[in-house]
Amino acid sequence: MITPTGQALKVSLDGRFHELKEKWRSEISSADIVRDPTLPMAEARVWALEKLVDLASRGFAVAGFPNHPGTVAESVAHFEMLALGDLSLNIKSGVQHGLFGGAITNLGTSWHHERFIDGVVDCSILGCFAMTELGHGSDVQSVETTITYVPETDEYEVNSPTPTSRKAYIGNAGKDGRMAVVFGQLVAAGENQGVHAILMDIRDEDGNDAPGVETGDQGHKGGLLGVDNGTLFFDHVRVPRRMLLNRYGGVNDEGVYESEIASKNARFFTMLGTLVRGRICVGSAAAMATRKALTIATRYALQRTQFNRPGAGGEITLLDYQTHQRKLLPNIARAYASGFAINVVSEQLQRVNDTRGSDPTAARELETRAAGLKATLTRWTNDTIQLCREACGGAGYMTENGLTLLRQDADVFATFEGDNTVLMQLVAKALLLDYKKSWGELDMIGTARSGAKLLGDRFMERTTAGTTIGRLISNATLKPEAQKIKARGWHLEMFEFRERHVVEGLARRMREAGKSDGQAAFEAVNDCQSHMLEAARAHTDRVILEAFVEAISGVRDEYVRSLLIRVCDLYALSTIEDNRAWFMEHHAFDSGRSKAVTDAVDGLCKDLRGKAQELVEGLGVPEKWLNSAMLEPTREEEAAASAA
Amino acid sequence: MITPTGQALKVSLDGRFHELKEKWRSEISSADIVRDPTLPMAEARVWALEKLVDLASRGFAVAGFPNHPGTVAESVAHFEMLALGDLSLNIKSGVQHGLFGGAITNLGTSWHHERFIDGVVDCSILGCFAMTELGHGSDVQSVETTITYVPETDEYEVNSPTPTSRKAYIGNAGKDGRMAVVFGQLVAAGENQGVHAILMDIRDEDGNDAPGVETGDQGHKGGLLGVDNGTLFFDHVRVPRRMLLNRYGGVNDEGVYESEIASKNARFFTMLGTLVRGRICVGSAAAMATRKALTIATRYALQRTQFNRPGAGGEITLLDYQTHQRKLLPNIARAYASGFAINVVSEQLQRVNDTRGSDPTAARELETRAAGLKATLTRWTNDTIQLCREACGGAGYMTENGLTLLRQDADVFATFEGDNTVLMQLVAKALLLDYKKSWGELDMIGTARSGAKLLGDRFMERTTAGTTIGRLISNATLKPEAQKIKARGWHLEMFEFRERHVVEGLARRMREAGKSDGQAAFEAVNDCQSHMLEAARAHTDRVILEAFVEAISGVRDEYVRSLLIRVCDLYALSTIEDNRAWFMEHHAFDSGRSKAVTDAVDGLCKDLRGKAQELVEGLGVPEKWLNSAMLEPTREEEAAASAA
Repeated sequence: MITPTGQALKVSLDGRFHELKEKWRSEISSADIVRDPTLPMAEARVWALEKLVDLASRGFAVAGFPNHPGTVAESVAHFEMLALGDLSLNIKSGVQHGLFGGAITNLGTSWHHERFIDGVVDCSILGCFAMTELGHGSDVQSVETTITYVPETDEYEVNSPTPTSRKAYIGNAGKDGRMAVVFGQLVAAGENQGVHAILMDIRDEDGNDAPGVETGDQGHKGGLLGVDNGTLFFDHVRVPRRMLLNRYGGVNDEGVYESEIASKNARFFTMLGTLVRGRICVGSAAAMATRKALTIATRYALQRTQFNRPGAGGEITLLDYQTHQRKLLPNIARAYASGFAINVVSEQLQRVNDTRGSDPTAARELETRAAGLKATLTRWTNDTIQLCREACGGAGYMTENGLTLLRQDADVFATFEGDNTVLMQLVAKALLLDYKKSWGELDMIGTARSGAKLLGDRFMERTTAGTTIGRLISNATLKPEAQKIKARGWHLEMFEFRERHVVEGLARRMREAGKSDGQAAFEAVNDCQSHMLEAARAHTDRVILEAFVEAISGVRDEYVRSLLIRVCDLYALSTIEDNRAWFMEHHAFDSGRSKAVTDAVDGLCKDLRGKAQELVEGLGVPEKWLNSAMLEPTREEEAAASAA
Repeated sequence: MITPTGQALKVSLDGRFHELKEKWRSEISSADIVRDPTLPMAEARVWALEKLVDLASRGFAVAGFPNHPGTVAESVAHFEMLALGDLSLNIKSGVQHGLFGGAITNLGTSWHHERFIDGVVDCSILGCFAMTELGHGSDVQSVETTITYVPETDEYEVNSPTPTSRKAYIGNAGKDGRMAVVFGQLVAAGENQGVHAILMDIRDEDGNDAPGVETGDQGHKGGLLGVDNGTLFFDHVRVPRRMLLNRYGGVNDEGVYESEIASKNARFFTMLGTLVRGRICVGSAAAMATRKALTIATRYALQRTQFNRPGAGGEITLLDYQTHQRKLLPNIARAYASGFAINVVSEQLQRVNDTRGSDPTAARELETRAAGLKATLTRWTNDTIQLCREACGGAGYMTENGLTLLRQDADVFATFEGDNTVLMQLVAKALLLDYKKSWGELDMIGTARSGAKLLGDRFMERTTAGTTIGRLISNATLKPEAQKIKARGWHLEMFEFRERHVVEGLARRMREAGKSDGQAAFEAVNDCQSHMLEAARAHTDRVILEAFVEAISGVRDEYVRSLLIRVCDLYALSTIEDNRAWFMEHHAFDSGRSKAVTDAVDGLCKDLRGKAQELVEGLGVPEKWLNSAMLEPTREEEAAASAA
């Protein structure tokens, strides 16, 4: 049995979708979603498809479709739970329902919805999201595939004009896909209207390539062996005009291109923006995989002993070691922080979706947060699963103990749905834009510093209850120096100061860079890249902390609330610790405070070590899905065994 | 063709064993040592054994055995080259020749050498190094297996008394091993003499378990699929007395235990000390694997473009981006630094080996450096191969491009031959011992600070040419502030200051901790663990930098020398940058200098970007072993193709 504290933590972290998540936990067995990690590629693929179809038939893992039950935010919750089972199956679902189905939903019209969504949902139409090409991945706007309107037959002709225009790394393209949403440059009447997407056949029912289509199987990868990634090449393939996903533009019945959005650039980013759910899902799935790894490593650290305990007799439990606490506890705190942040963004997604583009500011903020969280969480995931593997020693390297497959599968989350380095630059650009809007065209040099506070409040949209945060910061200002380190207001102030200062500095440098032309301009902007990443990190860290603060304010149980406050302290202070060089460089605090932060993190680790069991229970990973042979049975498992 | 600069760099980095390494490069084909990364486990195991036998028959990968050609230092060089081919094959060789053969060589006597070494070398006797048990890995001294002398029959009885005493994770135990060196508590006449090793059969020629032995196959792992790790369990197995590897102790002809080393503890650490080569090999092999990954990622970054270059036309080469330079170039610098450090340690190994234990100080220093380098390099390897994978985007995740297998195989290098966290604590303990020897039993508080410089010089043995380093530091002291940042003497001063200060602080804290008893003492020492890791890192960083400085002093070619000086600048400054929070906390420099260090690293990355091709050529990884489909053919390969 999970402890009452663990249960209460889980409810709090599950957020709005606690019921949906409990339904997964009670109805989905390990046979439904946990893969045998030794399955070779061919068998892993068969397994993933079979399980996907089964889940869909039972109403799991599918939501957010027109005329089907389940909201968009619920689709994120489904995706999160599936990530706790198996990441290949998770990504197979992401390709079929999230990307392929999502593109038809968001870029298509009711004509497409009526004809294709049922088949997408029940997997009778398996499809691909064919955007990336061999030559262009991050730079989607430069894809070379063409979708040319042919007035003579009222069709589009899809073509791959060069070797580098071959679609690559496309999920479902290696074997299972029958259709694809293909992105290419729409050319009508000789004019390029920018990137659009068209729905087309790629294979017949027997799996043979459709006429003019050449599919390729990219075979073995570093992980995700259950997903059949492949290539697509088009040799002047004709597709009926109605198959263009033309919600934002296309050739009309008169044979003329039309779009509500005049600017090609704006049109492109609007279309891409509707696909934001993918980034939220990737970030949240990575975070869930990390929860699973942390659960395995922490449970192992609570059962495993090594070296004699001086005096007391017996051996020392791994989690009693300071170094081991330092490995696991700050990451457990980060797991809570990121879970709360995903909950907030998932609600933002629902709001933006409900208002169908009527609030472009909200949509842009959502895209920025989705990008920042995706990059930040997947980086953390890669580092943390590896750390968990190492924390379990040689046992951690045995496939049967559940960590190495997680590590291999989660790896590419840093790359797909946007390379992390590129995404963080997108975040920084958005921050600069916000900054510029607040500050206008005034020359910032000189005046920026004095107006920093005011300016900060203007350009920095606080995630959540702005008044709560303002009050916390004001309270902290009044506290004696010695107490500040544990004052939430001081943490918030530090996170805000860092974001504001980094963005302001970046704005000044980019303004200077903007005065150059051509190669010199490239060089000047290029020199700011590290600064851009720093701005994006600072922003995302602040968004995460504010989500945590907001979540705590909603917890009624006093004990759980006090526990979450300590977990939040650990998240905030370990993040400040990670960035303490920056804070000292910018005189936010001195060397004494910096060392005090490290001491405080040590103290919190020691303090929370006694609650490690409850804290990992609260991460909400069912024991039956852990798939880790080395873990000793818990009371729950023992009870089940003795009852049987 | 490799450029003249690349060739000169390679010669310099190859060090003393350039000829041996060139022999590998010219005579060993990719078919000899490069594994098809998609091979399933069973086939990978067959492949690894077959290739190992073949290499051994051709005189590759075997050295350092009594009455066989090749020195111990050469065995490290062989191991390094094999790591560039395939890590499974590398570890298979490490198990057979390094661990199994090394144990017989170092713990056995000529009696054992005459009977078994030929079979070890030519692989007709395949064997295991059976030390780790399920219950005890890091704490080897507590293994539970017993080796009990039975006077009645003049035999030893090897027994596994508990479930946790089962030998686990043992290479060659899963399938191929026929014999094993088994570590256990030697009990004679009722007295436990501590851990000893005995050579015994575990399977017959047909692969059936020997009587009383139960072997187990641990199956699928996170990588190294070509190595058959397994378990061994002994049910009162009798072994002739002569089979004990009794160089340091055993029961004599009179049936009485005898050893030259009276203290059980000293005996244990002496025996373990003779196995130091394993740690050097693991660290160096990991560094070689990282060189391979850096070569692949850098060559890709030089051919791959993305996003239009403003003004100039065309697209931007990945390595022109600041963020990409920041990912790869400091790590290329670290690859050089670690290569030079391994060269130094390999020579130390040879000297210690030649003097057969006559210089315990040198032996202890070697063990400390081997532990520090193993942990530091394998940490860097895990981080850097992952970074290289991500730097190649989706292509990096495709198995055919050579990075994911490297990543999976290198993972466990952080664990075997000593868990990194445990090893770094060993390093710290050795530093404390050195410190105590220099400082004696005086109370350090108060006096330590004023005597720091003197003290530092006394306890800190400089790796190499002490006078060169002393002169560089003196020169730097005389330089104007603005020039210091590029002065090698300033780098050395910072590295030394950090080590000295951290060790002194640790010594004070440990002294305080020593005043407590039992549980309180454990708590007090436990609170110092992070501080211990910091001390070990600081020490190892300093050892690596000094090896780099010494290597440069041996380079004659002025141009290559000037290039290596810049590479060393990048290594030194990026290491200072990584630790700049510590330096500011301890007032070694202020915030302005800290930012200047970051600017200098940026500048060096930009400066060395133009030499990236030559720098990776110098890493000495033959193109034919890269096994990366995405790399465009170089001039060398094109020439070979057109000649064919």
